[in-house]
Formats: sequence, structure tokens, C-alpha cells
Amino acid sequence: MKSYRKELWFNVPTRREFINITPQVEECLRESGIQEGLCLVNAMHITASVYINDNEQGLLADYEDWLEHLAPHEPVSHYRHNRTGEDNADAHLKRQIMGREVVVAVSEGRLDFGTWERIFYGEFDGRRRKRVLVKIIGE
Amino acid sequence: MKSYRKELWFNVPTRREFINITPQVEECLRESGIQEGLCLVNAMHITASVYINDNEQGLLADYEDWLEHLAPHEPVSHYRHNRTGEDNADAHLKRQIMGREVVVAVSEGRLDFGTWERIFYGEFDGRRRKRVLVKIIGE
Amino acid sequence: MKSYRKELWFNVPTRREFINITPQVEECLRESGIQEGLCLVNAMHITASVYINDNEQGLLADYEDWLEHLAPHEPVSHYRHNRTGEDNADAHLKRQIMGREVVVAVSEGRLDFGTWERIFYGEFDGRRRKRVLVKIIGE
Repeated sequence: MKSYRKELWFNVPTRREFINITPQVEECLRESGIQEGLCLVNAMHITASVYINDNEQGLLADYEDWLEHLAPHEPVSHYRHNRTGEDNADAHLKRQIMGREVVVAVSEGRLDFGTWERIFYGEFDGRRRKRVLVKIIGE
Repeated sequence: MKSYRKELWFNVPTRREFINITPQVEECLRESGIQEGLCLVNAMHITASVYINDNEQGLLADYEDWLEHLAPHEPVSHYRHNRTGEDNADAHLKRQIMGREVVVAVSEGRLDFGTWERIFYGEFDGRRRKRVLVKIIGE
Repeated sequence: MKSYRKELWFNVPTRREFINITPQVEECLRESGIQEGLCLVNAMHITASVYINDNEQGLLADYEDWLEHLAPHEPVSHYRHNRTGEDNADAHLKRQIMGREVVVAVSEGRLDFGTWERIFYGEFDGRRRKRVLVKIIGE
């Protein structure tokens, strides 16, 4: 069994953003040389997500509105977590909706995807350096 | 290490439906001959889910109502994604709640499940052929 | 390829609770002797979650309020699932938000975590014995 590990770093200048990271994960898979196996991609921070969905700008704007409706940022005093001096409780909630990680099949050396599947990094509390882990195991 | 891959195809005649696919995944596991490992089951479409929960008709009706409450189909003009000519933005949202994939342990040649765990395909934008990927790795 | 399997048992005296199970999963990993691979941790019950987020009491209280807002326990008669004699339909919904499972990379014999990542068992229908599965594969 082979295993491969890489961290991808991001520094989003705004509080929230969605970034298509499929090309970086594909590059990791090429570097790994793994032909058959599983590829785990996960946020290493608890106010960010890795998820798979459409790379369509309208949808990304819809996600932003919808997540803000389900878990509003303000009033920040609404959340007990924010009494610690943080203002990012909503980011911990939004991340649960969108998920921490994806596991993608690796078949014949490629990410085994449907036509429109793309891997996204969902940042909900940016303006600092944060990272994503890519771990691939197989042969 | 062994690896196994199969696509399961569905053509749901309605927009939304929940289908228990546990028997098909068990059949895949038998075909694979894998005794110990991990089994990934994921939707290959971004308006559908694979999730694990109860095979109870009342609960499936509750999920339908609840998801429609959290991410309503109408008005379709509410969603920017639908300006592309689609009417399925809500399906992209519902799928995030229910999830893209499950990873199930394989132990002694069986899906290593609790008593009531069943794998479901959640269709949120049907009326066309769509597929689920089963990928199993192990020995 | 090595594989390891263990069940962790819980008996939460209240209906709902969040428990940090990171130390138990770390102990499993030590027992397994696996250095490189993937570690799956999943609820074996469909009214409970395993998820990764912050071990901060304010946030855990925020999750409790937020989940109760998104999927209220009462009125129990609101849910068709509860016509079976159950009163836990809300628990099946809450569990979908928080997720069934996490997959964690194993690197150099450790759970390959960001600074604040902790694995939690989320109980939404306690007052009985329930279990979590830890399955680790690798070398």
C-alpha cells in the first residue's frame, strides 16, 4: 500500500469564500502515483469546509445567502461561543452544514468523478492562513 | 490490496425520492470478495445524496417536508443558480444537508452496520438517468 | 494491509449530549499499530452523530440551541415517524445536520489533525446503550 500526504494552504482576504480546489487535488494525485484507492480531502480548521458541488457562480451566491439564513453571523452576541472573545460561532455552524471532508474514489489514476463534481474549499472565517489536508492511500 | 468499482444507475420518475440501496451495495461487496476494508458509496451527481438512516416510511416523509422547509423549491426565481435556465437550485442545497457520500467499514466480508443502518439514495432532481459509485478497497 | 476494529459504547443519561471521544480514538490507533492509513469513526445508531469540531462549552450549547431550532423535538406529533410510537424523529433529522461519520488521515502513527480538531459523539436520543465503530486500515 502506498500513502501520500500534502497540505494545501489558503489565505482568503474576506471572511467567506468558496474556492474550487479540484486542480490542486488532481496535481496531488499525479504526484502520488496512486492508481487505485481512496483520496481524503479535509479542512484542518473547524470554521471551514471541504465539499463537492457545482462550480457555478450563481449557486455559490445561493450557498452564501442560504448559509447566512440558517446560521446568521449577527448578532454575534447571540452565540455563547462568542463570549470567549471570538466572533466566529456562525462559522462553526455553517461548516457543519457543508461538511468537513470528502472521500473520493481513485480509479485508473484519476479522481473518479461524475461530470459536474468539483471539490471546493468553503471558508467561513478567513483573513488568516488556513490549510486543507490531502491524504491518498492505495496502490 | 484489492479494489472494486461499480456504478449503480437510477431513473426516478418524480423529482424527489428516497431509495434503499443497501441490497445493491451488499451485492457489490460479495462480488468484490473483499473481507476487510472500506466501502465508499457516493452520488456522482450534485443534486442527489447518499446517506445512512432508517428505512421507515414516516421518516422518509418527514425528511421530504423538512428539506422542503429548509431549502424550498419555490419560488424558483429566488435562486441565482436558476437564472442559468435550471430550476434545481434547491436540489443542490438539499443535497448538502443529506450529504454526498458514506464510508462504511467492511469486516469479515460484511457491511459493518448497526441494527437499523440502511444506505439510501436521495434523489432531489430526478426524471433522468443518474448514478451512484461504489468503490471498495481492502483485502 | 492491516485492519483494526473496535466498538466504543456510551450510555448517556439525558436525551442529548456531546462527548469528546478523541482520547478513545487515539487509544484505538495506538492499539492498531497502524502508521499510515485512514481511520473511520461512525455512529452505529441512526439518532446519533460523529463529527469533528471545537471542544468549547459555549459552542456545544450553541449547537444544542441551533439544532433544536432547525429540527425541534416538539410537538412530537408533528412528525410522521413518531406515529410508530417513537418520539425521536427530530433526532433522525439532527443527526443528518451533524453527520454520521468522520474519516481521519493516519500519518506517522497519529491522527493527522489541525490544532483544534476534536472528534465528538453527538447523542440526540440517549438514555440507552449505544455504540460507535472505529475502523482503521493501513500499514
